[in-house]
Amino acid sequence: MKKKIVMVVHGGASEATSFLKKHMKEHEEGLREAVKAGYAILKKGGSALKAVEMAVRLLEDDYLFNAGRGSALNNLGEVEMDAAIMDGKTKDAGAVSLVRTIKNPIVLARIVMTKTKHVLLSGDGALELAKRNKEIVFEPVSYFVTEHQFQDFVKTNKTEHLQDILQKKLNGTVGAVALDKAGNVASATSTGGTSNCLPGRIGDSCLVGAGCYADNKTCAVSGTGEGEILIRGVVANTIAMLVESKKYTLQEACRNVIRQRNKKGDIGVIAVNKKGDIGISFNTEIMKRAWLTSELHEPVIKIYK
Amino acid sequence: MKKKIVMVVHGGASEATSFLKKHMKEHEEGLREAVKAGYAILKKGGSALKAVEMAVRLLEDDYLFNAGRGSALNNLGEVEMDAAIMDGKTKDAGAVSLVRTIKNPIVLARIVMTKTKHVLLSGDGALELAKRNKEIVFEPVSYFVTEHQFQDFVKTNKTEHLQDILQKKLNGTVGAVALDKAGNVASATSTGGTSNCLPGRIGDSCLVGAGCYADNKTCAVSGTGEGEILIRGVVANTIAMLVESKKYTLQEACRNVIRQRNKKGDIGVIAVNKKGDIGISFNTEIMKRAWLTSELHEPVIKIYK
Repeated sequence: MKKKIVMVVHGGASEATSFLKKHMKEHEEGLREAVKAGYAILKKGGSALKAVEMAVRLLEDDYLFNAGRGSALNNLGEVEMDAAIMDGKTKDAGAVSLVRTIKNPIVLARIVMTKTKHVLLSGDGALELAKRNKEIVFEPVSYFVTEHQFQDFVKTNKTEHLQDILQKKLNGTVGAVALDKAGNVASATSTGGTSNCLPGRIGDSCLVGAGCYADNKTCAVSGTGEGEILIRGVVANTIAMLVESKKYTLQEACRNVIRQRNKKGDIGVIAVNKKGDIGISFNTEIMKRAWLTSELHEPVIKIYK
Repeated sequence: MKKKIVMVVHGGASEATSFLKKHMKEHEEGLREAVKAGYAILKKGGSALKAVEMAVRLLEDDYLFNAGRGSALNNLGEVEMDAAIMDGKTKDAGAVSLVRTIKNPIVLARIVMTKTKHVLLSGDGALELAKRNKEIVFEPVSYFVTEHQFQDFVKTNKTEHLQDILQKKLNGTVGAVALDKAGNVASATSTGGTSNCLPGRIGDSCLVGAGCYADNKTCAVSGTGEGEILIRGVVANTIAMLVESKKYTLQEACRNVIRQRNKKGDIGVIAVNKKGDIGISFNTEIMKRAWLTSELHEPVIKIYK
């Protein structure tokens, strides 16, 4: 029997912005490229871990998505990025928070996982590790700052006062989950944060159990939407625990956590398990998403419900 | 019927160091003061949230424990502190990471919770918020650096090379959980990190679901020990999910997560639920811990098994 392989990516859950509506085709193209690149690795027998890293790298490189190039600007007009990766086979994880000038935060997250005993490394400390690794590509600040994010920053920075910022909802992420031929799952998540947020704010994307989780025994999950809601709900781990403890199907577990347990926030998740089941749930207007499996010929790309 | 109240604190799980053996009585005294101060708040009808904050504040102020004053020094000889607090009634949470010069990181964590929509604020960003709040007391770096931590740093910094640091086990924490008369639980955790760790390393203490979690429906948990193990196991949330889903008693859930699920690391937890059950489990040589309930006359103080 041929082993099932599965690749799923997302480019964030939110309302449908005018920027999205204007660039719908390009967003779909970005999702297609990411899901196909990850899938190509799986098809050649590569690991789920490599596949999710590759898919997220491409989404970080794509200026349309809020991660890597195209990241949101914080309240000081700076780009600070978070990312995490987790291997369902070993439950090893690596993550970085508040990193700057690093083209692909997800690559640095993987280096934290494989080359240190740390899980989460932040700011200048993460930068020091990056400098010692030849794999890491640095880019000037200007590389990360795109016109649409700059305009969004200028607008929100003018209209939102400190009290608004302290109370605003925060979101914007990319992510991927995969199942490889060896039956291992993995997850990766990356973000540029939220326009005009407080400097130093860390969201769910780099937090194991919140926006990123993977365990062969249960599932791999990548989350998106309001980071603080994902953190307080420990969303990714809660989905895994529902699969384990209550024998929910993966889709039931995703739906339960997004729609029943969560009363407060706009969030979404993608998930995959060892059997190749896919779970996708969101309570927002849109979630940019795509998937490709060994049972399909072409990727499925969706933005609206 | 008189409502049961419960206060539990810990001062870290680890091996029995020579420093601990030399200062056993003082450690016990520090635990006693913290548990009694938290309990006094509960007895007067104060909230579990206020009680855990007070207990952790006292442990931060006590130079014997690795949090606030007496924090471990990182690889650059600097003190970087993490803390988190969570309210089981609302599931609101606040946390800070990599903060410096702030006498009580747990107070700033509570301010993040109550005065912003953020959950986790780091480094300079957290410092900016601190400067705008009169409650926050600043201290010079010299306040935090104690002789025993400095000596430990000098020793490890001499003998450990970069490769050793990248692979070392990381730990050291204080924490508290409580149940108040209104039937609400809360949790607080604070740490000074690990001697000679990489600058920028964030541990479990400030991560919701890992080293700190509280939900009236299940329990409040504070973790300690090797932070990276607590993060990857999403220990606090996993205990809560076992209580919810598998109908484990609180003690069974703590024991399951520390002893059955965890094969790799040296960790410990304290927990309390709405009924007033206490859960305590650790697989280390010692865990400094104390508890006081409305059914006891005097606090119970324990260090060894």
